[in-house]
Amino acid sequence: MAEKNKLSIISMSGDFDKAIAVFTLASGAAAVNYEVNIFFTFWGLNAIKKNTGRSFIGTGFLARFFNFLLGGRKNLPLSRLNFGGLSPVLMTGMMKGKNVATLEELFDASKALGVNFYACEMAMHVLGLTRDNFIPEVKDVLGVATFLELSKGGQTLFI
Amino acid sequence: MAEKNKLSIISMSGDFDKAIAVFTLASGAAAVNYEVNIFFTFWGLNAIKKNTGRSFIGTGFLARFFNFLLGGRKNLPLSRLNFGGLSPVLMTGMMKGKNVATLEELFDASKALGVNFYACEMAMHVLGLTRDNFIPEVKDVLGVATFLELSKGGQTLFI
Amino acid sequence: MAEKNKLSIISMSGDFDKAIAVFTLASGAAAVNYEVNIFFTFWGLNAIKKNTGRSFIGTGFLARFFNFLLGGRKNLPLSRLNFGGLSPVLMTGMMKGKNVATLEELFDASKALGVNFYACEMAMHVLGLTRDNFIPEVKDVLGVATFLELSKGGQTLFI
Repeated sequence: MAEKNKLSIISMSGDFDKAIAVFTLASGAAAVNYEVNIFFTFWGLNAIKKNTGRSFIGTGFLARFFNFLLGGRKNLPLSRLNFGGLSPVLMTGMMKGKNVATLEELFDASKALGVNFYACEMAMHVLGLTRDNFIPEVKDVLGVATFLELSKGGQTLFI
Repeated sequence: MAEKNKLSIISMSGDFDKAIAVFTLASGAAAVNYEVNIFFTFWGLNAIKKNTGRSFIGTGFLARFFNFLLGGRKNLPLSRLNFGGLSPVLMTGMMKGKNVATLEELFDASKALGVNFYACEMAMHVLGLTRDNFIPEVKDVLGVATFLELSKGGQTLFI
Repeated sequence: MAEKNKLSIISMSGDFDKAIAVFTLASGAAAVNYEVNIFFTFWGLNAIKKNTGRSFIGTGFLARFFNFLLGGRKNLPLSRLNFGGLSPVLMTGMMKGKNVATLEELFDASKALGVNFYACEMAMHVLGLTRDNFIPEVKDVLGVATFLELSKGGQTLFI
């Protein structure tokens, strides 16, 4: 029997458009029966925070400050032409108007299609975050070496 | 017979320097007989627009506005130290001065060496663009799952 | 005997956080016995400059000016919330406070674990840099096609 196709993504960016790319690739691949693994690290962790808005979470003053500034899935800025957060709103409107899945829909589809979510141990440590700050769908907290091992034999992207 | 080497690139960035990277890798790999596939999505689509300058293309007011702001291949900004568009001009000058291929030359070389250009269906839909807005060398309009399938067994990069 | 696992990274970014990612992945993979190759190009070259601060190196007025603005490993900005260079300092403090390896430590670990450093011939040419401007650990100066050849059969990331 042929081995299952595999797509692994290291998601480090906190940009709205990059998050769209991550969850479009993840749900698209999962829909055609790929095993999909996403390793969220640094800014990428914002996408899987339980709190989708801004909040002072984490331990340590600086960590709490950074986490507030970064916010959650509702605060992701566009990497270009962000216009102070207006563009992600406009773009979501454009996507709805064209019947294209929005970030939230792509995110939900990824979860529903069994995409594996992993959180980066080191980044969580630096930002003072614990597993409790993330959505329950996070399968495990890993280091990079374990993730590389797990993504062997497939396509691996850094986004 | 050994299978042909394959390089696939998901080109999402609209930055001048990232575009240089895309077409340097593409033409360099094609020159040593790789099969090369590029999937242009979101800002990456700017590089294959027929109109290399700014124009109000697309359907829908917001889409037309975004497309104008983004422009074409002549409007790509440097990801750092852009200085309002001066840097890409200076850098092109530096490349010419050192006899290094410029973006246009790398782009032409990629086309001449048979690099396969694909446009992302979803991004085109969001930005209200049709096949007609792109250069005729675009081989097909695809979804991500199809592109992943097509890039299997080679090296895949997200740029 | 099974072939050795291989990780190859094209490091084009000059961002502090991306550099952390590059050297975390590199040292993490090398620690579990991967062959690791890094191809430094454009802004990525800043990380392997002999001079870790700002200096007017390179040939040609523009090249010297760009190289000064870019600086070395001590001048890498955070890709978001940089606050004029304050954030990399704060983040290094946070990493030390949490006993997480800093950029310098990850860099040293990568060297100690035998990660192969390669410099991009074309980018050096454009920026007027010579091998002499880089740390002695740089194994070779290569073109992209050679690097792709060398990274075949493993996982390749563009960061």
